[in-house]
Amino acid sequence: MPAPSERTTVKRRRERGVYEREVVHAVLDEALVCHLGVIADGNPVVLPTIHARVGDVLYVHGAPASRMLRLGRDGDEICVTVTLIDGLVVARSAFHHSMNYRSVVVLGRPREVTGDEKVAALDAIVEHVIPGRSAHTRAPDPGEVTGTLVLALPLDEASAKVRTGPPVDDEADHDLDHWAGVLPLRVVAGDPEPDPRLRPGIAVPAHVSEWARPSSS
Amino acid sequence: MPAPSERTTVKRRRERGVYEREVVHAVLDEALVCHLGVIADGNPVVLPTIHARVGDVLYVHGAPASRMLRLGRDGDEICVTVTLIDGLVVARSAFHHSMNYRSVVVLGRPREVTGDEKVAALDAIVEHVIPGRSAHTRAPDPGEVTGTLVLALPLDEASAKVRTGPPVDDEADHDLDHWAGVLPLRVVAGDPEPDPRLRPGIAVPAHVSEWARPSSS
Repeated sequence: MPAPSERTTVKRRRERGVYEREVVHAVLDEALVCHLGVIADGNPVVLPTIHARVGDVLYVHGAPASRMLRLGRDGDEICVTVTLIDGLVVARSAFHHSMNYRSVVVLGRPREVTGDEKVAALDAIVEHVIPGRSAHTRAPDPGEVTGTLVLALPLDEASAKVRTGPPVDDEADHDLDHWAGVLPLRVVAGDPEPDPRLRPGIAVPAHVSEWARPSSS
Repeated sequence: MPAPSERTTVKRRRERGVYEREVVHAVLDEALVCHLGVIADGNPVVLPTIHARVGDVLYVHGAPASRMLRLGRDGDEICVTVTLIDGLVVARSAFHHSMNYRSVVVLGRPREVTGDEKVAALDAIVEHVIPGRSAHTRAPDPGEVTGTLVLALPLDEASAKVRTGPPVDDEADHDLDHWAGVLPLRVVAGDPEPDPRLRPGIAVPAHVSEWARPSSS
């Protein structure tokens, strides 16, 4: 990954900026959804959508009629941001409350994806959410491929921001009686809920029953 | 809440649009972070930040030097989006995979908050993340209040989008042998990790040890 551009250099809390390719990839891979920002009629609009990373390319998908994705297809600049919350930072002072988190911001002009790359991207999006799933579903037929718009955004301008560790209170506040520390958070799955129309005799597959997201918390 | 404006009317999947005030409030209150979209140098930028709702006003806060918030303070239009993931929708076809989610989009021109409202907003932001916490911390001193920028965005243009329920597969796909259903997801807390510098004899308070987020999943 190139050095951060002026725009993706973290402006605030520079010590939290992390530019290593591995960190950017890991955060993008763990986040279930991204938030896609475009300019619509002169104003910013942010909507959640599902993404997948393949190498140094980020894919997002949606319906061809989606206003968000049409704007991206037209070659306008977009912003894709993902955020993972690893814990609540509980400080002695209200001011120093924070969160432990990992976030990535990707800027760039997307291109519309077609052909074999499009089929592979749709497969990657299913695998991104549930690893192991794509081999156990009916693959998209040509009409479904046509009925989905896929955009590709290179990870040329991408940066990560990470906070870890305990609260950082003012020195004098350590004498206070308030508890301080970190409450770690994570996303967990409950029991799988079979479709009411599931045919008898189909067991829950391991890629569903053992689904878990990696977490650094 | 007024009827949705043309801009906040859900364009795609209209059946998922939910405009009731109670739903918008509940989603904003449950989401730990929001994604704030602004236009910077002509391009969209999306960054995560912490918010709080008080009545029909949404507050966001940050450092006064924050580029994001300065842009909002200047009276430009911003977009605040929150998303809760309630479950993975596992379909028989790749095409019908989805997520159960609740999201809210708020559009508008924020105003900078000052005086007593600013102090109350900072308190609300602490309470938003950890209900019951603000009474057990050192309150912000005047320098800390000055050292934080708070913006208020009215919930005049806000809409929710919700997906619930099992997968909706094509009729013919119900004969396939693939498992289908929903894998519910939720955010849970692990064991509180005391600050290494915590004074001896300070127990974990109930607002930390019993922290939980409401969830409709």
